[in-house]
Amino acid sequence: MSDNPRPLRLIIVGTGGMAKNHAAAYAGMPGVTVVAGVDRDPTRLAAFLAAHDIERGFASLDEAIAWGGFDAASNVTPDAIHHDTTLPLLAAGKHVLCEKPLAANYRDAAEMAASATRAGVVNMVNLTYRDTPAMSEAARLVAAGAIGDLRHFEASYLQSWLTQPAWGAWDKEEQWLWRLSTAHGSMGVLGDVGVHILDYATHVAGSDVASISCRLQTFDKAPGGRIGDYVLDANDSAVMHVQLASGAIGVIHASRFASGYMNDLTLRIFGTKGGLAVWSDGKRSTLRGSLGEDMITADWADLPFPPVETNYTRFIAAIRAGQPVAPDFARGAALQQVLDLAALSDRAHAVALEI
Amino acid sequence: MSDNPRPLRLIIVGTGGMAKNHAAAYAGMPGVTVVAGVDRDPTRLAAFLAAHDIERGFASLDEAIAWGGFDAASNVTPDAIHHDTTLPLLAAGKHVLCEKPLAANYRDAAEMAASATRAGVVNMVNLTYRDTPAMSEAARLVAAGAIGDLRHFEASYLQSWLTQPAWGAWDKEEQWLWRLSTAHGSMGVLGDVGVHILDYATHVAGSDVASISCRLQTFDKAPGGRIGDYVLDANDSAVMHVQLASGAIGVIHASRFASGYMNDLTLRIFGTKGGLAVWSDGKRSTLRGSLGEDMITADWADLPFPPVETNYTRFIAAIRAGQPVAPDFARGAALQQVLDLAALSDRAHAVALEI
Amino acid sequence: MSDNPRPLRLIIVGTGGMAKNHAAAYAGMPGVTVVAGVDRDPTRLAAFLAAHDIERGFASLDEAIAWGGFDAASNVTPDAIHHDTTLPLLAAGKHVLCEKPLAANYRDAAEMAASATRAGVVNMVNLTYRDTPAMSEAARLVAAGAIGDLRHFEASYLQSWLTQPAWGAWDKEEQWLWRLSTAHGSMGVLGDVGVHILDYATHVAGSDVASISCRLQTFDKAPGGRIGDYVLDANDSAVMHVQLASGAIGVIHASRFASGYMNDLTLRIFGTKGGLAVWSDGKRSTLRGSLGEDMITADWADLPFPPVETNYTRFIAAIRAGQPVAPDFARGAALQQVLDLAALSDRAHAVALEI
Amino acid sequence: MSDNPRPLRLIIVGTGGMAKNHAAAYAGMPGVTVVAGVDRDPTRLAAFLAAHDIERGFASLDEAIAWGGFDAASNVTPDAIHHDTTLPLLAAGKHVLCEKPLAANYRDAAEMAASATRAGVVNMVNLTYRDTPAMSEAARLVAAGAIGDLRHFEASYLQSWLTQPAWGAWDKEEQWLWRLSTAHGSMGVLGDVGVHILDYATHVAGSDVASISCRLQTFDKAPGGRIGDYVLDANDSAVMHVQLASGAIGVIHASRFASGYMNDLTLRIFGTKGGLAVWSDGKRSTLRGSLGEDMITADWADLPFPPVETNYTRFIAAIRAGQPVAPDFARGAALQQVLDLAALSDRAHAVALEI
Repeated sequence: MSDNPRPLRLIIVGTGGMAKNHAAAYAGMPGVTVVAGVDRDPTRLAAFLAAHDIERGFASLDEAIAWGGFDAASNVTPDAIHHDTTLPLLAAGKHVLCEKPLAANYRDAAEMAASATRAGVVNMVNLTYRDTPAMSEAARLVAAGAIGDLRHFEASYLQSWLTQPAWGAWDKEEQWLWRLSTAHGSMGVLGDVGVHILDYATHVAGSDVASISCRLQTFDKAPGGRIGDYVLDANDSAVMHVQLASGAIGVIHASRFASGYMNDLTLRIFGTKGGLAVWSDGKRSTLRGSLGEDMITADWADLPFPPVETNYTRFIAAIRAGQPVAPDFARGAALQQVLDLAALSDRAHAVALEI
Repeated sequence: MSDNPRPLRLIIVGTGGMAKNHAAAYAGMPGVTVVAGVDRDPTRLAAFLAAHDIERGFASLDEAIAWGGFDAASNVTPDAIHHDTTLPLLAAGKHVLCEKPLAANYRDAAEMAASATRAGVVNMVNLTYRDTPAMSEAARLVAAGAIGDLRHFEASYLQSWLTQPAWGAWDKEEQWLWRLSTAHGSMGVLGDVGVHILDYATHVAGSDVASISCRLQTFDKAPGGRIGDYVLDANDSAVMHVQLASGAIGVIHASRFASGYMNDLTLRIFGTKGGLAVWSDGKRSTLRGSLGEDMITADWADLPFPPVETNYTRFIAAIRAGQPVAPDFARGAALQQVLDLAALSDRAHAVALEI
Repeated sequence: MSDNPRPLRLIIVGTGGMAKNHAAAYAGMPGVTVVAGVDRDPTRLAAFLAAHDIERGFASLDEAIAWGGFDAASNVTPDAIHHDTTLPLLAAGKHVLCEKPLAANYRDAAEMAASATRAGVVNMVNLTYRDTPAMSEAARLVAAGAIGDLRHFEASYLQSWLTQPAWGAWDKEEQWLWRLSTAHGSMGVLGDVGVHILDYATHVAGSDVASISCRLQTFDKAPGGRIGDYVLDANDSAVMHVQLASGAIGVIHASRFASGYMNDLTLRIFGTKGGLAVWSDGKRSTLRGSLGEDMITADWADLPFPPVETNYTRFIAAIRAGQPVAPDFARGAALQQVLDLAALSDRAHAVALEI
Repeated sequence: MSDNPRPLRLIIVGTGGMAKNHAAAYAGMPGVTVVAGVDRDPTRLAAFLAAHDIERGFASLDEAIAWGGFDAASNVTPDAIHHDTTLPLLAAGKHVLCEKPLAANYRDAAEMAASATRAGVVNMVNLTYRDTPAMSEAARLVAAGAIGDLRHFEASYLQSWLTQPAWGAWDKEEQWLWRLSTAHGSMGVLGDVGVHILDYATHVAGSDVASISCRLQTFDKAPGGRIGDYVLDANDSAVMHVQLASGAIGVIHASRFASGYMNDLTLRIFGTKGGLAVWSDGKRSTLRGSLGEDMITADWADLPFPPVETNYTRFIAAIRAGQPVAPDFARGAALQQVLDLAALSDRAHAVALEI
């Protein structure tokens, strides 16, 4: 980094939900200015601009692009319109950091990835668990051959907001109810956190999913399977087994009924020379290994790991360096393809589907 | 138990392998006498009789049955002949404790279970992990409703004898090589330890497998895939997802490539009111729970559990009480059916198969 | 029919392709007037209006609906826009005869069917093989119990335009090339004629598909699999087996490589009391039966059948009678659901998928 | 053939069922003598020897082999013991013609084929429909390239003995009842005639099954699904789709409920240069083709075919010539493998299984 980093102007498209995280992240970066917010809801937009001291607001993305005074955008719109909002930004030659999941289905996601490649801009999907330092170190160790050739793994993302009230009343609050209803845009636990644990496992393994079998389950939660307008038909638990391109096999699972775990991602991964165990809850993370002599005696030790930079910081650095950054749109599309196949497998008696 | 328990006379059929464990177990029990051993290998038989101070030896089971001076038998023959040796014992009205797996396939196992029921004798399959006290307590807690309605679980049996030498040289010793070769009677890790982890998970859950999807993998381990006469074609890793009759879903997996674990069985099981985590290595076991108030805060506590009696002790007690005992042959057959379907699923693109 | 049938005013939406068949059919009907054509291509529209002596032309459907001077519409637009053009017609309370397939996928088709029901108008999908008299008589006989309870059937739609030039040069003419390319909107032989043979078989059987397994095959036809802009990736042959709701099972297949058959639909259907064989080539049809005493000796006889009215005639009659007519949009949607599942089954190792 | 063909001595193992056909066939051949019959039922054996003027009888195969005075054997034992009776014959260096199906499962059949190869004797499975002259000519034409590259086919074996009494009372006669009951050794219509139509289709195509999907159906036929000791659980109809090694795809189906057909095998097969249609009922056969110019106009012509020799005649000729003959045990084993996979596919939601 130079002392005087190149000034960058960003806009934030969509000012609800996670937008404040983006604004806060950029606020602390030298030379980075959020120059505008975009939202069709004027009240929400005004509040956001005021809260984060942002100068301009636009009621539509078209207006913002017509104005043009920005280098990059954070796309924080609802999932279903990531596709329609990102394509014009790419066409205008803007760098884009898009919230996950990249799109509602693989076809849309692949089109976004292809457009980004054609545009030659920095593109990134905001898989926030990539910020987990223990996970990054695990990926580095596996790539460096620390556990030899991969053979077997187990990955889980466990939540319990359907069995305890720590995050609020799932049966009364809209932020939880919509996640239980396909008509409200939910792909259930598979779409909600499945993308994270899939990315987590395959990023550490350094190998993509080659074949996947999936079973989804929706449990009875309310009389008649509905609460008000919400038909509670989205999946609550997902269990999968996969084969990676490397030949290793493993299980991946996720649930909102995992009483005892708020938000826990766990990965145990085994190779011919050792094993690693990564845990995180989104805030803290740990890394343990059974490597070298330890493996002979089945002992495990805590392993050190350096801090990692956030996606926001790496996105900005990539723009300045004129270099690509991971996880890019192509990665986001690849994950979406696996999720689509998982849902298809569940529909098809869990038959294994090859990528 | 009375002060003078009814005297019981046992024979041990098959005097290699695990037979010494049976002999040692019975040796300490009041009123129990091992009155004969049966083996067609005279050298092995003689050594066994001498080592355990057993009076009689028979070169064939037919001769032993013709003699008839016993009440019960431990069947410790090779897996492939459990069926042919157990049926005559049942026909002769003898109680039988049979080593696991009960038979080579479901059809044979079901016939054994039906024969035992007709004979009205005590019948038991020696699933040794039923001796695990933490697991027994977990089963009791689940049955008592401690975690509410079951939703989700994860079960694993992890070994590493293919990556480290603690148990011997897998590529030189017959006791390991045969487990890698279907022509030598192996069903791979699925048949070897899959039966244990399947029993473990469904016994604690108190609900049988209703549907199973399975993927098996055999990894390259030697040039040309063989060592001497051993074609190394048996599976090394097994990954499954299942639905139980209760509706709960989960993953079950096992591997011989799980570097860092010698012989670890782990079960995490979740219901609407709490979660339990059971671990054992065949010698020690632990039980942790997130129950009641703990579940609200996602805290976990060690839970106490009483000691449990061995299968041998419970087998003898059941004979004396004239009562059935678990796990009986019907249970052994049910497990065999699931294993057969798992192998079939793997052959059939992992499609989920209903029981 | 009365002597002075109620006057009806129709428009034809889309004036290419099959539109001339619609115009010609309506031209001969007393009291029926085609009052306008709609097409965004002014040259094509003008030629069509002139050829069929139609008074008005509209460049868009919106304009035609704004004008409003019609009772019903024939929708002859490209398949991909059936959905977007039919919904406004229904919303305007117009009766609609839509070309097959009803839509590009089940979701769209189901929405059209639901909209038609809400609108309370006559709605019909133009499955032209419903005009086949032998097939209609076969359906009547089956419904009347002539062959008893259904058990087994075989249905095929065989073409050979990929192996002989009778219909033109498939490798040079756009009307054939687009049918070989998914990027040009083709679902291959499955989508092209599969809908006809599926309707044919299940209409005669009087029972819907309950479960379907499908395999599709695309054969090499040109160097590099493409001719000009056409990537030749659409399926050429489709083979399926199904179970009907009645429990009967059968095979359904179609090919463009069936050298020796131009355009032959054949159905053999068997029940507990007899068998029927229907054949047609779109112009002629035959019906044979092995019924009653004939069935005992496995003899077959030609069976008589009355002529049937065309879809166009029945559409008009239904409007005048204020009654529904078959095949309606609900039927079109049900067929589309089966086609979608067939394509999914092919993607999923041909696993049988239940409706 | 020379004027004085080499004398050959045969035995017939199993003297019930089809044995009289074998005896009659050999009776007319110069230089061929049936020197003994083998059966453990002395009454049946005596009657058979008398009826066919055969000199010797043996109560067991062991005795016949110990005697040794024969060159070849016809194995007409029940299907379930083909394996156990054929292996000793091969070990003794005898040529063997074995009734179909070669064995009860692929493993046994493959062992028989391997043993026959090692023994270096003539081995043949008695697939009697190979005697069909129209089918032989069709196979020759396909192999000669008359229809170009194969693309698509339809094959059926249709019977109706469950709906009409021409062959006897299926619900009273043992010869039919056992075919409806798995406990009586039946694999249903799949095992009974499926082997014939599979052989028929793939022999004409000149290409083996590479992948198969199968659905089986058992229909209600009697109150409670049983008649006396016969549980009526064997399949009545089988529907399959397959891909051949050549890439061609097709449907294969069979039923006992095909009212109007006593025993009809039909094959329609299509390639890039023409189509063929073969029909036979086991006694007569026809062959039609749409070849050359006919194919352009979709015309069909009857094609001539020469007579073919029976399996019995070709078996004897092969022994004398010291040459192999088709269909040999390897072919019988390959067919058994496909049948086993078909049954497995049906158990597994009809998923396509690769050979």
